[in-house]
Amino acid sequence: MKFIAEINVMPLKALLDPQGKAVKLNMHNIGYKSVENVRIGKHITLELEAKNKNDANIKVEETCKKILSNPIIESYEFVIFNK
Amino acid sequence: MKFIAEINVMPLKALLDPQGKAVKLNMHNIGYKSVENVRIGKHITLELEAKNKNDANIKVEETCKKILSNPIIESYEFVIFNK
Repeated sequence: MKFIAEINVMPLKALLDPQGKAVKLNMHNIGYKSVENVRIGKHITLELEAKNKNDANIKVEETCKKILSNPIIESYEFVIFNK
Repeated sequence: MKFIAEINVMPLKALLDPQGKAVKLNMHNIGYKSVENVRIGKHITLELEAKNKNDANIKVEETCKKILSNPIIESYEFVIFNK
């Protein structure tokens, strides 16, 4: 079965996010003074073949840990659905 | 009212995505041969103050166009919810 995974990898809340801070400043400059807590991470979509949804879950979890995120500075979350 | 926006900015489908291709190759190397169509973009979360949901929508739309995405190579989508 074909599955699609949508993964978000975000900088941990405890860490500074310079990219997010830059965007916040820019938004203040164009007049949106009320914008706060901008955080910027990665959004990853991929397709994979798996026996079932549980199998797909395990594969995506391992991929997140091994390749897509650095657990020291990032957290991840994902959703999986049938193609 | 306080709103939270979750924004995804992705490379356009018609374009090559070298980062995604690198991740795909890496996944094949660790044994996930069935992974295809890896695409990597940005995931942005932010908080903003707006009169209502419609107002928040307009603000986030403008931010996406002006700051967060490059319409020549990227598309964006977002959801807004109450904080």
